[in-house]
Amino acid sequence: MRVVKVATGDEKENTTGAVLLEAPVPCPKPEEALVKVLRAGICATDLEILKGYMGFTGVIGHEFVGVVESAPPSSGFTKGSRVCGDINMACHCDDCTICADRESVMCRNHCPNREVLGILKKDGTYAEYLTLPVCNLHKIPDEITDQEACFVEPLAAACRIVEQGLIKTGDRVAVIGDGKLGLLITEVLATQQCSQLVLFGRHDNKMKLAPPSVERVNVRDRAAEVTTQFSEKFDVVVEACGHPSGLVMAGDLVRPLGTVVLKTTCAMDSAGFNTATFVIKEVKIIGSRCGPFQPAISLLATKKVDVNKLVSKVYPFPEAIQAIQHAGTKGTLKIQLAM
Amino acid sequence: MRVVKVATGDEKENTTGAVLLEAPVPCPKPEEALVKVLRAGICATDLEILKGYMGFTGVIGHEFVGVVESAPPSSGFTKGSRVCGDINMACHCDDCTICADRESVMCRNHCPNREVLGILKKDGTYAEYLTLPVCNLHKIPDEITDQEACFVEPLAAACRIVEQGLIKTGDRVAVIGDGKLGLLITEVLATQQCSQLVLFGRHDNKMKLAPPSVERVNVRDRAAEVTTQFSEKFDVVVEACGHPSGLVMAGDLVRPLGTVVLKTTCAMDSAGFNTATFVIKEVKIIGSRCGPFQPAISLLATKKVDVNKLVSKVYPFPEAIQAIQHAGTKGTLKIQLAM
Repeated sequence: MRVVKVATGDEKENTTGAVLLEAPVPCPKPEEALVKVLRAGICATDLEILKGYMGFTGVIGHEFVGVVESAPPSSGFTKGSRVCGDINMACHCDDCTICADRESVMCRNHCPNREVLGILKKDGTYAEYLTLPVCNLHKIPDEITDQEACFVEPLAAACRIVEQGLIKTGDRVAVIGDGKLGLLITEVLATQQCSQLVLFGRHDNKMKLAPPSVERVNVRDRAAEVTTQFSEKFDVVVEACGHPSGLVMAGDLVRPLGTVVLKTTCAMDSAGFNTATFVIKEVKIIGSRCGPFQPAISLLATKKVDVNKLVSKVYPFPEAIQAIQHAGTKGTLKIQLAM
Repeated sequence: MRVVKVATGDEKENTTGAVLLEAPVPCPKPEEALVKVLRAGICATDLEILKGYMGFTGVIGHEFVGVVESAPPSSGFTKGSRVCGDINMACHCDDCTICADRESVMCRNHCPNREVLGILKKDGTYAEYLTLPVCNLHKIPDEITDQEACFVEPLAAACRIVEQGLIKTGDRVAVIGDGKLGLLITEVLATQQCSQLVLFGRHDNKMKLAPPSVERVNVRDRAAEVTTQFSEKFDVVVEACGHPSGLVMAGDLVRPLGTVVLKTTCAMDSAGFNTATFVIKEVKIIGSRCGPFQPAISLLATKKVDVNKLVSKVYPFPEAIQAIQHAGTKGTLKIQLAM
C-alpha cells in the first residue's frame, strides 16, 4: 500500500519533509481493527511534525474516516463499518494508575505510556490502511458524508472546551484566531448559550465563514485599538491563533476572575509576555486538547455545525505531496486526501 | 509627621529611590478612620515601586498594624482600637457593576476604579499616620503581637489560595520559592490536609524555617535532576519565586489536569517559556492575589502559623532608608519599621 512518511536522509526529495512510498499493509494486534482509509485531513500539527516536532518518523496524519476491513468478532465492528477514531491510545496496563479508570479523561488523554496516531509511536492516517484499537473506534452514521466525518477529530478538540465545563449560560465569549481550529471552535460555541460570541481574526474571507450569529472583528493593523475597545469585556477568551500575541491579547480581553482557554501552543520568547496581567486579574488559564468524539459526531449528524465550507481542496492520494504543499500555503483552510 | 515617599527629581539623595520627609497628617474622609501606624512591613512590591513599578509617587507601603486615632461614631472602631487593613479600596459607587455585590471577591479585589494602599492613588503605610475606609479595617485580638499583626496582609495573600478552593484533601502540593511569600504560603498550606507538601528552594537557611512536616528540596545547581525526580508528581504547584524559571519548573512538576498557582509576577521574555507543556497536559494556571484577612488573623491568634521567625530586623522609623537598603539585600527576609 502507499503511505506518506516523514522523510529521513536520502528520502528528502521535496521541501515538505514528506515522502510518498510503498509499505506493507499493517498487521492488527489482537485488540485492533484493520481500517481502510477513505479520507485523511491535513492538520497544522502534521506540518509541524514534518518540520521535526515530536521527533516522529513514521506515517503521519491523525484525522481520518475509513471502513473496517477486519476486527475482532466481539468488537461490534464488522467489515464495512464506517468509522473514525480517537487518536490517543492509553496503555490500559494493570499497573498503570492513570488507566485504573478507563472512562476518565486522565486515561483518555493523559496516559504516560500512550501512543498517539501519527504523532507518537504509532503510524498514522496518510495511508491506504491503518490499525487502531477497537475501543478507539466510533461508528459514523449515514447522515454524515466522508468529507464531514474526516472533521470529527478536530471538531472533538473544539468540543473539549464544552466538556471541560468552561462555558456557562450567558457568558460573553471571545475566540482569537480565524484559522481552521478557531473557526471550528466558533462553530461549536455558537451552539452554546453564550450571551455574546466574538471572533477576532485577521482575514475577512475566513471570518465570513463563521455562523451568522457570531460578531466578527478584524484586528489586522488595529490590534491596540481593538484591545482598548474590548478590554476586560469577556468571561471566557479562547486562544486559537497559535501566536504569542494571541495570549497577550487574551490577557487584555478577559475580565478579572475570567478564563483563558489555550487551544494552541506557542513559544513566548519574543512576545514581551508578562504574567502580571494574569496574576493581578486572578485569571484562570487552562490548556485544552483532545476532545470527546460522540458530541462531535452528534453535531455533524444533526447538521448543527457546517464543516464543508472549511474545505479548500480534496486531493487524490497519489498527489499527497502537492496536497501537503498546498496545506502549508498562507490562507488555506482544510486540505483532505481521498484514498 | 514623617513619611517615606517615592523620591522624585531633586529628592533622589540615596540609591533606594525613597526619601524620608515631613508631611502634614492626612485628613480622613467621612467614611475613613485616621490610624496611627505602629509597625509597617517592607514587601518586595515596595522595592519594585521604588524602581518605578505602577508609576506610583506617593507614600509607599501597604503592610501595617496601627491604632485608630479617630473614626466615624457608627463604625464600631474607637480611639485605641488596634487594627490592620485590607489594601484594596473599591469605589462602591452606585453605577459600578463590579461593586453591586460588596461581599464579592470581584468587589474586594477587582473594582476597576479601586485605589490601593501605597500602590495606586492612595498614600501608604510608611508614615506615622494613614487614613483608610473603616470597611477595610480589621480588629487585632490581644493574642497577636504588633510584629505578628504586621504580617496579616501577606498572610492573607497566602490564604487566598485556600479561599480559591485550589487545595483538596489528599493533594500532593509543591511550593516553588523560599522567600518571604513562599514561606508564608508553606505555613498556610501546612495547616491544610495535603498528603504531601514539598518546598523547592535555593537556600537551606531559609528552607529550615518551614514547618517540620514540610519536605524541603534544594534545587540550586541541580534543577534538571530535581525536575526529573519529581516530574508530574504534584496535583498543585504554587509558583512563588518570581523568576520565569519557576513557571517552567511548575510546568514540569504538575501532573496532567493539575493546577499551577501564580502568586508572583514575572516577564517571560528570556525563559524559553513554551505553552506546549500546559496545553498538552491540560493544566490550569490560576493567578492568585490579595486574600481574606479574617482567616489570616485566625491563624495568628491560634498560633497555627509562626511568622516571628521570618523577621530579619526591626528598624526605628527614622532609619527607614537604611531599612529599605537592608530589605533589598540578598538573603534578607522580613524587615519591619517601628514608628
